[in-house]
Parts: sequence; C-alpha cells; structure tokens
Amino acid sequence: MKLFYDLRQSAHQPKQYMVHGRIVEPLENPSRLDTLIAALKTCGAAPKQPEDAGLGPILAVHCNSYVAFLQTAYEKFTALPNAGPEVLPNVHPYMAAPHDGFARALPRTTGILGLTGWYIGDLSCAMMARTYEAAYASAQSAIAAADDVLRGADAAFALCRPPGHHAYRDRASGFCFLNNAAIAAQRLRDRFGKVAIVDFDTHHGDGTQAIFYNRSDVFFASTHTDPASYYPHYYGYDDEIGQGEGEGYNLNLPLAPGSGDRQFVEAVRRLADRVTAYGAEALVLSAGWDAHRDDPLSRLDVSTAAYHQIGEILAELGLPTVIVQEGGYSLSAVAEVAPTFLTAFQQTHHVR
Amino acid sequence: MKLFYDLRQSAHQPKQYMVHGRIVEPLENPSRLDTLIAALKTCGAAPKQPEDAGLGPILAVHCNSYVAFLQTAYEKFTALPNAGPEVLPNVHPYMAAPHDGFARALPRTTGILGLTGWYIGDLSCAMMARTYEAAYASAQSAIAAADDVLRGADAAFALCRPPGHHAYRDRASGFCFLNNAAIAAQRLRDRFGKVAIVDFDTHHGDGTQAIFYNRSDVFFASTHTDPASYYPHYYGYDDEIGQGEGEGYNLNLPLAPGSGDRQFVEAVRRLADRVTAYGAEALVLSAGWDAHRDDPLSRLDVSTAAYHQIGEILAELGLPTVIVQEGGYSLSAVAEVAPTFLTAFQQTHHVR
Repeated sequence: MKLFYDLRQSAHQPKQYMVHGRIVEPLENPSRLDTLIAALKTCGAAPKQPEDAGLGPILAVHCNSYVAFLQTAYEKFTALPNAGPEVLPNVHPYMAAPHDGFARALPRTTGILGLTGWYIGDLSCAMMARTYEAAYASAQSAIAAADDVLRGADAAFALCRPPGHHAYRDRASGFCFLNNAAIAAQRLRDRFGKVAIVDFDTHHGDGTQAIFYNRSDVFFASTHTDPASYYPHYYGYDDEIGQGEGEGYNLNLPLAPGSGDRQFVEAVRRLADRVTAYGAEALVLSAGWDAHRDDPLSRLDVSTAAYHQIGEILAELGLPTVIVQEGGYSLSAVAEVAPTFLTAFQQTHHVR
Repeated sequence: MKLFYDLRQSAHQPKQYMVHGRIVEPLENPSRLDTLIAALKTCGAAPKQPEDAGLGPILAVHCNSYVAFLQTAYEKFTALPNAGPEVLPNVHPYMAAPHDGFARALPRTTGILGLTGWYIGDLSCAMMARTYEAAYASAQSAIAAADDVLRGADAAFALCRPPGHHAYRDRASGFCFLNNAAIAAQRLRDRFGKVAIVDFDTHHGDGTQAIFYNRSDVFFASTHTDPASYYPHYYGYDDEIGQGEGEGYNLNLPLAPGSGDRQFVEAVRRLADRVTAYGAEALVLSAGWDAHRDDPLSRLDVSTAAYHQIGEILAELGLPTVIVQEGGYSLSAVAEVAPTFLTAFQQTHHVR
C-alpha cells in the first residue's frame, strides 16, 4: 500500500494551544508525522510524495472565502499593532443571533480580527507563516491517496497532518484546517456513486459530519467518546442522523468514558454493518489512534489489540479504501497501534 | 440625580484579556469605577447604594441556564486538572451548523469546558471567583436606577461596571456579563409602554440589539464605529433594522473611523429624532465615553465638547431617563467627559 505524505506538512508547528485556561504547547506536532512514517514503513507501506492536484479538490469541499482567509491570515494578522507571533481568535460570532447574520454564509466584517474569529473556532488552531502550506500539503496527501484508489489501487494511506475531521467547510477547529477525509470522499465521488466515511478517532468528526449532513451520497459513521463532556462538546450525539436528503445518512455511536476494547470493537462492527447496508462502493477511514488507553487525551480504555480487530472488520467490507490519518498523540502508542491496524487491514483486505 | 453603584462591582478584576493574539491585562478594570464616582460627584450626582431586587429583573432578560452558568463557572472550571487561574473559553459552537444544534436554546454538553465556550463568546470575559458577584451588583445598580425613575425621579445614573451592552440573553462578551441597559429597559416596561435605548458607546451594543431585535416595545438606536473592522465585527451594520414584530425598531448609525464631533453629534441627533418619532415614554442611555479621541480604543476624533452637545440633545427629549454606564477606558478622558455630559444633561432635562 502506498503511504502518501509531504514533508512540508511539518511546516505547521505553532507554540500556543489553550487547555483549561492555560496556553501550552500543542500535542498535535510534527513529531507525529515522523513517528508515523517510521512506524508504517515497518509494515510495508511505501512512501510516496503526493502530486499537486491544485485547489480544485479542496474547493469542492471548502468555501473560497475560507481558503482565501487561510492563505492570507498570517500576513494580515501579524501586521496588526503589537500583534502576537501567531494568529489566534479572540472574538466569535453569536451562534443564535436572532437576526439574519447568524445564517450568513459570509461575514460582513472585512477586518482580520473579525475574520479570524469567524473562520477559526477555537484556540487549538494557531496559525504560523507556513500553516496554510502545511494544511494544503496535508490535503494533497489525501487527494493523492484518493486518486491512487481511483486509478485502481485497493487501498492507500494518506498520512495527513495537520489532521482534518474537525474542519468545517468554512471553519478551522480542533487542530484541523482542511478536512482531508471529506476532500478524499468528495474526490472518490468522481467514480463511486456512494461513499462511506468511518471515523474511529476518539473525538467526533464534527466537521465531516456537517459537510455531508444534508447529503445521501456520502454516509458518515462515527464512534467516539461521548461529547457530553469531551471535545467537540456540541456535536456527536446519537440523535444527529442527518437532515433533508441526508436524513438517515449520519450515524453517531458515542462511547461512555471508560469504555474498553469490547465496546469500541462492537461499535466499529455496527458502523461496518451500516456501511454494508448502505451499499457503499468506496470507503474513507478517518483513522485516529487516540482512543488508546495510553493517549494523553483518551478517556477510553482501548488496547492495541482492539486496533487489530477493527483493522480486520473494516478490511472485511471489501471496499476500495482511503485511510486518512486523524488524531493520536502518544508517540509510543501511535508507533504501536498504527502498524498493528494497518497489518491486520492489509492481511484481510480484498476488494470484491 | 442619584448615582447608583455598589463597591462589590470592583470584585471583578481579571488579569487576562487577549488583544491581537497576546494575553494582556484588561482595560476594563475597577479603577474606572473609582474614577467615575469621583468625577460624577463633582457635578452633583448623589451616591446611593442600590437595594437588592433579586434575580427576577435579571431573569426577565437573561436565560436561567446562562445565569446558572455564571454562578457556578469559576468553581467548576478551576476544578479541572491543571486549570488556569481564570475561566477562559477555548472552544465555541459552530454558528452555521447545518443540523438543529445551531438553533438550540440550550447546549447538549454538560461539561464545564463546553459550557464555557457556549456561554462566553470571547477572550475579554475572563471570570474570577467574584466575577458573578460583581456583575450581579452592577445589574442591581441598573435596576435601582430604573426603580428610582419608576418611583418618579426624572432621571437616575447607574454607574454599572462591569458594563453590559455586549451581553446577550445567553452569552457574555466584550467585557460584559449581564446586560444592565436591557435589564433597566425591561424594568421600565413595568410602567412605560414604549421604551427607547440610545447607545452612544463607540462599540455597537450587539447584545442589547439582539435581546430586543424581535420586539417593538423597546426601540434600540445606536451610533458607533463602523464594525467592518472594529469590535463587535459581526453586528452593528445599518441594514440591521429588526425583524418580525421588531422590524423598524432597530436603528444603527455606524460612523467611519476618523469621524469627529460633527458626525458624532449629528448621529446622536438623528437617533434622538427617531426616539421622538417612535413615541418613547421612557429612555435608557447606554453611555460609553470611548468615542473620545483620547480613549485607547477609539478610532474616532470626538472631543469633550461633543459630549456637552449630546447631553443637551438627549435631555431635550424630555423623557424619564436611566443613564447606564458602558465603556470608556482613558481614566483622564472619562474624568472629564462623564461630568461634562451629565452637567449638560441636568441643566437641560425637564420631563414633559
């Protein structure tokens, strides 16, 4: 299996991230990329530099105005008087504004402070000079993996970093700027009529859910830690089932904190069963390793063995598959879990 | 004229406020209260401790769930592992979520991190142990001033601090926790059928606007710096005219940066004319002094003399009036401007 990544993805290395009211260094850092490259090579993944497919596949998912913001935010923000070293939002639109502003697709404000709060939803997405370059390269890895599958590969691995599943069509959040999995899924739609996304990162993929919430051609299925007191807090509940054309094409299986291998594997099995029932023709996996008990963000009690099991379950779907890297913050756990998953997946996977 | 304030309003003194990506000390601090007390005494305002009218008048404007959050946020937040010294939000709901979450009146999440981002909209509202006590006392000053007018006083001054006009029914922002002016206006509705709020703080009173946006019994009229690149960024544009029952009962007159006395006074005169046309029976002034050219946040070129003029214009409306303190961050400018305004107002004001 080809392993797509671009070392420019390491150019994003901000120093600021707010946790419990304190600014600390982000857990999402370039060491994750290095660790995953080394770990995945051990199970036969073949490194491959993605070609540059341009902005087209990104703009098939994200708003032009948002991408334009990402391209220019650092330069404009750091030109403010006495600006800090990184772009950080400090003001946000009101989500329930009674007037028409709340549903506006584009902000009225033209100033960089207002735009920053409009397009960046939290304090985990500090932007540096080369953040956009890194996010763009990360998205190109996802596009290249999708293109490999479109050309006939059974599966491909997109070693995306920064990750993507918390990015909305017009908002960065949760360490994510461009939604790599959504971009890959949309790309796969060029050939496959029905695409499923299975997200087993321990955080709900709220950005991906929102992007496809009104659509039936992409089925989003996720298991994750119950958001009642866990990021992303506001979304990921089990009654979020899609709406309009998309009703019935969104599935959330939140897990109670403390859940272990049995619950985690069972949830993935239920997601897989629903993917089969949906009649998916291709699969995107939002692959996070942060449910593992050793992950600093985990509230679950999932072991490495569970990732072997879910690798088999997801491979048994027999679908052309793009695996997209999401979270996972313990370098030692990631180094063990990712190749365990990929080995099991490769041993079992045969496209029908 | 009575000057209502409570020294517990000084209990709110957070150390963190984000400006252009840097955490600095807030400009909105208890020295403002001390300065204003001293300055307003010089023009005959008579200090008066507000009685405690309880939560009723506050809950006539704000959601129960929001007030419950304010009451308990500090205790819950600082119980988080390795919590910072003050409550600061680091994640916010998505304002254009395609699913029903966007219009939800109450958050699904029960955890303090999610609640903090739901109920606090920016990084100017850090909460300390006694922040709620101070905000509550500030609101009581507004209620007491309204009650003084309800009992027959021609006018009363509520020396509110923390200020209020950026507070929504369920969101703190812009240094504001409880919307003192909205609470006073709602209180005046007990006797007066039609109440007007004139807001001449240099920042748009987005919270007040939102609270009354669908109502015709309270007319909100504001002049402020154009929000295109100025706080509150997303609201305060001249086409925000109210909606439903409230259509035509909201008036914004944004001023271009650099505007001087002529434009500022002319705008207030237009607001006053509209208050007369509306047929207001009572008036609330959201009185900020931060349009003054010496204010550190000002982008206008307004002099002290302009405040003399607008004091006369607003007094000439001849309405029972509650003056509610909002912004103003240069202590020396505030010490000059507030008594200039109040002197002119008192000399001119005769309730018809």
